[in-house]
Amino acid sequence: MSGLADYRFEGIIFDVYGTLVDVSRLQEACADICDEVSDFVRLWRAKQLEYAFIRTIMDRFADFEQVTADALDYAVAAYDVGLTSNQRRRLMDAWLSLPLFPDVHPALERLRTAGQRLIILSNGSQRMLAPLLERAGIASSFEAVLSSDQVQAYKPDASLYTLPGERLYARNYELLFVTANGFDVAGAKAAGFTVCRINRAGLPLDRLGHDPDMSVRDFQELADLVLSESGTS
Amino acid sequence: MSGLADYRFEGIIFDVYGTLVDVSRLQEACADICDEVSDFVRLWRAKQLEYAFIRTIMDRFADFEQVTADALDYAVAAYDVGLTSNQRRRLMDAWLSLPLFPDVHPALERLRTAGQRLIILSNGSQRMLAPLLERAGIASSFEAVLSSDQVQAYKPDASLYTLPGERLYARNYELLFVTANGFDVAGAKAAGFTVCRINRAGLPLDRLGHDPDMSVRDFQELADLVLSESGTS
Repeated sequence: MSGLADYRFEGIIFDVYGTLVDVSRLQEACADICDEVSDFVRLWRAKQLEYAFIRTIMDRFADFEQVTADALDYAVAAYDVGLTSNQRRRLMDAWLSLPLFPDVHPALERLRTAGQRLIILSNGSQRMLAPLLERAGIASSFEAVLSSDQVQAYKPDASLYTLPGERLYARNYELLFVTANGFDVAGAKAAGFTVCRINRAGLPLDRLGHDPDMSVRDFQELADLVLSESGTS
Repeated sequence: MSGLADYRFEGIIFDVYGTLVDVSRLQEACADICDEVSDFVRLWRAKQLEYAFIRTIMDRFADFEQVTADALDYAVAAYDVGLTSNQRRRLMDAWLSLPLFPDVHPALERLRTAGQRLIILSNGSQRMLAPLLERAGIASSFEAVLSSDQVQAYKPDASLYTLPGERLYARNYELLFVTANGFDVAGAKAAGFTVCRINRAGLPLDRLGHDPDMSVRDFQELADLVLSESGTS
């Protein structure tokens, strides 16, 4: 695994959903509402992303909570399940309690202890991200939480990718961008970041004309890579 | 079913893929390449749309043939199937021979005979649309074929929705826009068209804040509606 530059990064930028936290774990909150729980959750997540993309193309931003609720309404109608208002609230709240992938917390600690500056750049809203990071026990790991609400658009819109550099007074190639989402790999790469793809499931690379600089299986591999390289610089 | 204005429309605009032609029939060309043919085709189509959206957001247009080929590469890698160059060509060519839904041809004939001006507005490229409409036997039904290549962006980008009105010297509310795709319903409605959704499969409405003016099951119902209304005006 090579490709990391020979200098210490000025900061490391992290995507959240699918990268730090495991969206498939929504299944636990959905277990009692229909039989095809994994298909239901996959549709909910797919529609959430699709609506975020479509609204960005149409320049009709709605915050991520709204988009997530709209996608839930679609999935509920598609599976013809009836939800009580309590069940609905529980499903929406599940986004605030998504668990970290098990390799994430130790790796963030190692990176932070080694003096790396860590930042979030997410399509989530501040209202959704603040409780999520708090409950996951990693809120204090990050110097800043940058999000779609600040620019009223969703990744991979170029407007989001200017935020980390502005915050850290750094150029994008000096920053390492870490994401598991194909659209985010492409957007970050097009914006000039050094990009590391997290590929836990061994999925193919999306064909968007912007490939990552490197790819790792999980955060332990990421931390090994960043710390060994910066240790020798 | 109400909602049609009390005047003759200045023209009727049609989406193509999923509206006039049945994309699921790609399955026939894919039958010998893997076991899960319907899942393979669904993934191919989903990635095609996703890549079109992402490239539009990123302002990195590639024509629809390229996007379709990129999506095929992803699906082939995801299902780990090996394609010969002949098989690959056959799969791509299948997009040029997609069959019409059976209700489409008679309805287009009725509308045209009644003096309606018919126009295509598609995310396809001219290179893909020309042979498709020719082989389907409906090329001569349309006064114009407007497409993504003209504006280097994909629906629901607002730039495409200005093309029909410019062509017909009409305002969008005087034009009936017919589509089966949720993103296209939203884009056309936001652009001010009178929008009719085709909903053959009885799927839920996408939640994008822009609902269609009317919804029909198929083109026969569409033609009945348009011709009865305009007949009384």
